[in-house]
Amino acid sequence: MNFIDFLDPKAIAVIGASRDPNKVGSVILKNLRITFKGDIFPVNPFADEIQDLRVYKSILDIKDKVDMAIISVPADGVLKVLKDCERRKIKIAVIITAGFKEIGEDGAKKEAEIRKFLDKAKIRVIGPNCLGLINTNPFFNATFIDPNSKMLKGDAGFISQSGALLSAIVDDASMNNIGFSKIISIGNATDIDEADLVTALKHDSNTRILAIYLEGISNGKKFMDSLADFSESKPVLVLKGGKFATTSTAVSSHTGSLAGDYKAYELAFKKSGAISVDRIESLFNFMRDASKLKITSNEIIIVTNAGGAGVVTTDHIASAGLKMAKLSDKLTQNLIDLLPKEASVHNPIDILGDATPDRYRETLEMLVNQNKPIILLFSPQEMSMPLETAKEVFEIHKKHPDSMILSVFLGGSRVEKARNFLLERDMPIYDYPEEAVGLLEGMYFYHTHKMQTYSAYKKDKTKVKKQKLTKNIFGLDAKKLFDTLGIRSAKGLPVNRQADLAKTAEKIGFPCVLKVNSGDMPHKSKFGGVTVGIKDQDSLNRAFYSMESRLSAENKGKIHYELYEDVNKISEQKVEVLLGAHRDPQFGPMIAVGLGGVLANQISEVNFMLSPISDGDIADFIDSKVGRVLSSATDEITFQELIRYLIKLDKFMTTNTDIKDIDLNPIELFKDTMVATDFKIFV
Amino acid sequence: MNFIDFLDPKAIAVIGASRDPNKVGSVILKNLRITFKGDIFPVNPFADEIQDLRVYKSILDIKDKVDMAIISVPADGVLKVLKDCERRKIKIAVIITAGFKEIGEDGAKKEAEIRKFLDKAKIRVIGPNCLGLINTNPFFNATFIDPNSKMLKGDAGFISQSGALLSAIVDDASMNNIGFSKIISIGNATDIDEADLVTALKHDSNTRILAIYLEGISNGKKFMDSLADFSESKPVLVLKGGKFATTSTAVSSHTGSLAGDYKAYELAFKKSGAISVDRIESLFNFMRDASKLKITSNEIIIVTNAGGAGVVTTDHIASAGLKMAKLSDKLTQNLIDLLPKEASVHNPIDILGDATPDRYRETLEMLVNQNKPIILLFSPQEMSMPLETAKEVFEIHKKHPDSMILSVFLGGSRVEKARNFLLERDMPIYDYPEEAVGLLEGMYFYHTHKMQTYSAYKKDKTKVKKQKLTKNIFGLDAKKLFDTLGIRSAKGLPVNRQADLAKTAEKIGFPCVLKVNSGDMPHKSKFGGVTVGIKDQDSLNRAFYSMESRLSAENKGKIHYELYEDVNKISEQKVEVLLGAHRDPQFGPMIAVGLGGVLANQISEVNFMLSPISDGDIADFIDSKVGRVLSSATDEITFQELIRYLIKLDKFMTTNTDIKDIDLNPIELFKDTMVATDFKIFV
Repeated sequence: MNFIDFLDPKAIAVIGASRDPNKVGSVILKNLRITFKGDIFPVNPFADEIQDLRVYKSILDIKDKVDMAIISVPADGVLKVLKDCERRKIKIAVIITAGFKEIGEDGAKKEAEIRKFLDKAKIRVIGPNCLGLINTNPFFNATFIDPNSKMLKGDAGFISQSGALLSAIVDDASMNNIGFSKIISIGNATDIDEADLVTALKHDSNTRILAIYLEGISNGKKFMDSLADFSESKPVLVLKGGKFATTSTAVSSHTGSLAGDYKAYELAFKKSGAISVDRIESLFNFMRDASKLKITSNEIIIVTNAGGAGVVTTDHIASAGLKMAKLSDKLTQNLIDLLPKEASVHNPIDILGDATPDRYRETLEMLVNQNKPIILLFSPQEMSMPLETAKEVFEIHKKHPDSMILSVFLGGSRVEKARNFLLERDMPIYDYPEEAVGLLEGMYFYHTHKMQTYSAYKKDKTKVKKQKLTKNIFGLDAKKLFDTLGIRSAKGLPVNRQADLAKTAEKIGFPCVLKVNSGDMPHKSKFGGVTVGIKDQDSLNRAFYSMESRLSAENKGKIHYELYEDVNKISEQKVEVLLGAHRDPQFGPMIAVGLGGVLANQISEVNFMLSPISDGDIADFIDSKVGRVLSSATDEITFQELIRYLIKLDKFMTTNTDIKDIDLNPIELFKDTMVATDFKIFV
Repeated sequence: MNFIDFLDPKAIAVIGASRDPNKVGSVILKNLRITFKGDIFPVNPFADEIQDLRVYKSILDIKDKVDMAIISVPADGVLKVLKDCERRKIKIAVIITAGFKEIGEDGAKKEAEIRKFLDKAKIRVIGPNCLGLINTNPFFNATFIDPNSKMLKGDAGFISQSGALLSAIVDDASMNNIGFSKIISIGNATDIDEADLVTALKHDSNTRILAIYLEGISNGKKFMDSLADFSESKPVLVLKGGKFATTSTAVSSHTGSLAGDYKAYELAFKKSGAISVDRIESLFNFMRDASKLKITSNEIIIVTNAGGAGVVTTDHIASAGLKMAKLSDKLTQNLIDLLPKEASVHNPIDILGDATPDRYRETLEMLVNQNKPIILLFSPQEMSMPLETAKEVFEIHKKHPDSMILSVFLGGSRVEKARNFLLERDMPIYDYPEEAVGLLEGMYFYHTHKMQTYSAYKKDKTKVKKQKLTKNIFGLDAKKLFDTLGIRSAKGLPVNRQADLAKTAEKIGFPCVLKVNSGDMPHKSKFGGVTVGIKDQDSLNRAFYSMESRLSAENKGKIHYELYEDVNKISEQKVEVLLGAHRDPQFGPMIAVGLGGVLANQISEVNFMLSPISDGDIADFIDSKVGRVLSSATDEITFQELIRYLIKLDKFMTTNTDIKDIDLNPIELFKDTMVATDFKIFV
């Protein structure tokens, strides 16, 4: 169902309307009265009239059709009110009331009851514990945000899990000319969650861009899919708060701890084409400017009257991964003909401190048809005319509506009018170059991010059987499972007693490796549970005796011995690879490939991919540092096989949902083959 | 000499004063007349009176004492004027005139002539090609920056290589309450350079903090020393423009290319205790707020009425390497008693959306005596009172002048008055939390940066002899030099002809390694010039034959063969270490230590230290990723020896200034020893 239509009500009931002007229920009613053109029905059992409106004792008393209910009764009364609303066939309710799961156990119980009712009910709910929502087309303000703030109609949607950021942006919007389509506070998201809202706004023709602030996510996969769907047609930006909070589930083992808390989010946003930012300022700037620009090039032109500002901006462009545009010889010659001889006609184009508005205009005229973003830098100098320069920029933009000019007016009181002139005319304008570059970076990523295709994934024919796994398994037990996937690994056999050693060694051959296997000792080598490079029967006997005398006494019956071929005999030229997987609680399997062995714990050169692995993920891996190291260490056939292993692991994790982590570390990668030598599965 | 006194003239001559009000020479005169209390003497051979002042035909005509000359005559006339100034015993001249080395060869010639005259002259020069300077105590504006901008007396010094940034900050200052001590535009720095000015401002008691914008540096070592000297008593911040410009000299070989262009700057700033920033905004904010705060703790407290803003700020604190302060049980209990039960008393302290000014005050009162920086976050919500809250913050600060409160008022028109209230009262105030965290990060670094001590360096008794080096040397020739330093390396001998093979092998022993040595082939293994693990005479003969037949024909007489012991026989448990050095054209030797071997090219886990290596550098290395990997791979004695090798290389580079790069890659690091196996010196 698409409840974007629900957000266009003809009649709204305010349940919990209050006579006390300081109460939320009163402020919302007041805000609606100022902004809403449809019918408003206050509900309050203890009042007859509020703000000159007739008050109903109960929603059931209203005879007219009601489309939406705003609920701000005390938490204990919410469920009863919801039931009444459903009886009145109201399709959507916004529960402002707080005091649910955010306050602890008591509240969580109340919220669970509501959740249970909603499972079978036909009414949908935003909240509880939210600020409400604002729609600008048709206009209504169903929040308790101060209505003094001028609210502009525009094309930015904003979904926020933080009510305070929401009220801050609304206040900021009034000064900074930000126009909104819809602003929605999602609160506890007990029914309608962030993904539902993203999907709804995808279908809202008034919303051309979307910004999201969130901390927790109800369902990672669903959210990711909604973002991917949205970003196919419109840009979406996410600021995720709480990046560094260590969650107890996230860091269960090796591969997981390499990833870090935020890794899965980062991958998910990138995979779904969502622009991800760290700064509140960037979130606000995106809402203001993103819909004004269609950035399809990462080659930037800088025009400046301030050499230093040009240099610093060039640095930011480089560190953002963007490029400085190379100008054609013809264009360069035209610039030489136009500009004073002291000017620098190489990008950044320095038109000098005495640049007049005319010089700015003539330079821009030469550049706008290059189809490249232009950062215009202005510093107030002796001969400078800020406002007149701003006017020229605006004229150029009117003549060339597809031009992408981002203006930066450095300074203070002298440039204030120029800034405001451009701001009021919906031109992107900044106080400093850094945020302009940030917007270009984000928008370029959006317009060029790889669409997700899965031909490699589909081509892989690995059959994965679902395994019953109730405890961690290591060594040969784990190896068996990887064998079924077709992953090449070192030959290995169990050694039940010392008497079997010779017979087993004969089958394995020398040199060989003796290892213990115990569910309690994932890190064998630390405990002296691994002896490598055993060259003959004698050494093997001694190694076994030594290990047993050290370990068996304390671990009676809990440990087993295993004998493996020593793959170092293949060649000394090798690279140790780590293959692994980690199940993110929100986004599912993450597959890891990196440099392995003893260094992996400290040097985390590891690439992660979120399941399902796309062709774009593979291309990114091949192009990465790790990919380049590994492909240069082996032949093409083996490297391609390694890539297929990633997909196999992905499918294995996807089928076996009990598994939390997998470590294949190291896989020894040789010039013309590779062999997995150690095997761990954690549930 | 300390020319800070020069910047306090009693009489100033303006040479090149102009009647045309649009000319620089007129604007400077006008600015001086408005601001300067001493005598002003305009000089212009073609005028009798300008701006009601008597004009002198030449500086020589002035009978009174003149302390400073501001020169804005055409470039061709500057030298003559300078000579006249010297005759008049003027101690300092500021050359505004452009048209010198910045415009190419012609100008460079003129500048060289001036430079040559200055070498023997007693007059000192700021510029040419600069904006001039402003002193606020005693006040005078000897620039052509628009005097409309209100100029505030304060304690921030600003040295800028960009005139435009300088005029931007002066304009910004008028809106943002930034007070300056001195503002100096250094231009081409043909005489007085950035280091001289840093040293001068160190002795200026009106300057309590210093900000520097620069692109090029005249003398890296001198600049670094001046920064180190300055930062011993006062904070200094540097924004370096042109970080990513690839200089042709910088990237000469392996170790150098690992470093990247900006690495040496980064190390130099860190070593000298200078705060380094990337954003123009951070530069401006530092000038405004740095002197207001003495930040001695990296444990931050957040007080917020906006949960989401608290979460995002916590993220920024984590990624800046700062910490969230842990509150004591007693303090926590006090907060519980004070705040509503829905409040969060754990840092970030969320005092809820309905926080009154009183609640802010009472919470702050509990926290100010913790001696920790407090970020106060405010979002305008329904019940919020921005201005009253700001007033409470100011009252708290008055009562506790040592408190470190940085206020962030999110929003727009509703919080504008509150922001301005705090701004006008010199309280640190920000629109967004990111810049507040940035300032805390920088100031914490400044107050805690390790003072440079050199006990390890001094204790090392290595005698380094200066070598005559005219070409690159590799292999045994290079090894000999490292032997003199006492660096342990693999045994090796030259093999002159095949007939000598057996005799040489007897001395080296098996297994051994056969290598070619040629000045043209630094990367031997790529050309098949290395065979490792040779087990017996037979294999050695074959290896030699194979190598010779492949390589000798084309390289007649140019290559030699060398036989080394194969140190892999010591143990298979080893880590490959890269030791190296690179001479930065500005800052001198940089010593590198990292993970070596085949991966070093791609995985640049390498630590760099700028010469001379300090105890702090060593402590940082031991604490780094690389340091932890290496110290866990070997015993303490060997690890300490490795550290001494760094100092040996440093001394070797310092003495042998012809050497550009050194690669000792790999040094094989074993459990209880280490051995260098490959040797390269580039000149």
